[in-house]
Amino acid sequence: MSGLFITFEGGEGAGKSTQTRLLHATLVGMGHKVHLTREPGGSPGAEALRELILFSEAPLSQRAQALAHMAARADHLDSLILPALARGEIVICDRFHDSTLVYQGYGLARGDAASLDFIRSLRGLLDCEPDLTLMLDVPPALGAARVAARGGRLDRYEQEETAFHERIAEGFDKVAREAPQRVKRIDARRAPDDVAADILSIVTPYLPS
Amino acid sequence: MSGLFITFEGGEGAGKSTQTRLLHATLVGMGHKVHLTREPGGSPGAEALRELILFSEAPLSQRAQALAHMAARADHLDSLILPALARGEIVICDRFHDSTLVYQGYGLARGDAASLDFIRSLRGLLDCEPDLTLMLDVPPALGAARVAARGGRLDRYEQEETAFHERIAEGFDKVAREAPQRVKRIDARRAPDDVAADILSIVTPYLPS
Repeated sequence: MSGLFITFEGGEGAGKSTQTRLLHATLVGMGHKVHLTREPGGSPGAEALRELILFSEAPLSQRAQALAHMAARADHLDSLILPALARGEIVICDRFHDSTLVYQGYGLARGDAASLDFIRSLRGLLDCEPDLTLMLDVPPALGAARVAARGGRLDRYEQEETAFHERIAEGFDKVAREAPQRVKRIDARRAPDDVAADILSIVTPYLPS
Repeated sequence: MSGLFITFEGGEGAGKSTQTRLLHATLVGMGHKVHLTREPGGSPGAEALRELILFSEAPLSQRAQALAHMAARADHLDSLILPALARGEIVICDRFHDSTLVYQGYGLARGDAASLDFIRSLRGLLDCEPDLTLMLDVPPALGAARVAARGGRLDRYEQEETAFHERIAEGFDKVAREAPQRVKRIDARRAPDDVAADILSIVTPYLPS
């Protein structure tokens, strides 16, 4: 028996936190056993790495950042995600492998082929892909406006310039085109309830009976 | 022009810190430009990871630990080791790849084949091997006695039980047998000056003229 692993992807301000919470509440209401989690983080060890990756004063080189994200992911997989899936439960995760490829590979490394290969090799070594990825699409300018309106502490990536966030949008576009079976795109410019309704209709066929 | 990359390996209490300092002082006295560094750590980003790996309250899964060590190593390579070697300088590093294979693979994972393969794959991705590795051999019981005599804060690995340190000794033995060209073994039960004399005689033929 294996569960269902759903990831949410998209740039800053796409509404992933809101939509993961809404989907979690709906599925729990339907009687499913569901874990809502996020990356980087999701387990105590991975949260400690998250703090270091996103907020530390000491910068990491690009490939060190990719490896640190993978270290956090490995701990998250081993301590939470894989055991839950093995019990037949549902896991909803806000960001996963696609974000690493997009932020590190297309964003920081500007699509450099060796960097993308490095990240893809690490991804292969971790050997766990989602059953379904919901990609929330918003134009980078709208996403940035939402982040600004939200306020609070900005992490290393949220502080990057506009050109970075445009590379992120292009990176997510490439990811979606390369894996159309797994990645479903949703127009996330709309009201949260409309986006949530679309998401539920996409998820429903994947649910265990 | 490329420099010389020397690593020191061995179990706890083998005398690596003492011997790296002695070799550094000798080579500097001979007029070489030499960097003395250590792992995990060696750069600000890697030192932050070191603290998390060795002393954090939040444990990491085995493969997460291996990845976190590699993240620290990547930052150390990118910010210190590779630029120094590119300038033709000498780098002396206290612990490197062999320690990860031995501590994570032979120690924590008890020689599990998948774990060893995982670590070797990561090592291949980082794509940097030392020119020369000096392996300091002491029986685990003597090493443990030296660590106890030294006092101070014990890290995650120093706190492991005797059987762990016996697996470490066996792991280093395997590493040395697999790479006899690169790895030179030294009987480190003897007085520091005798050990240092052996080390210098091994290093001398590698020195740039």
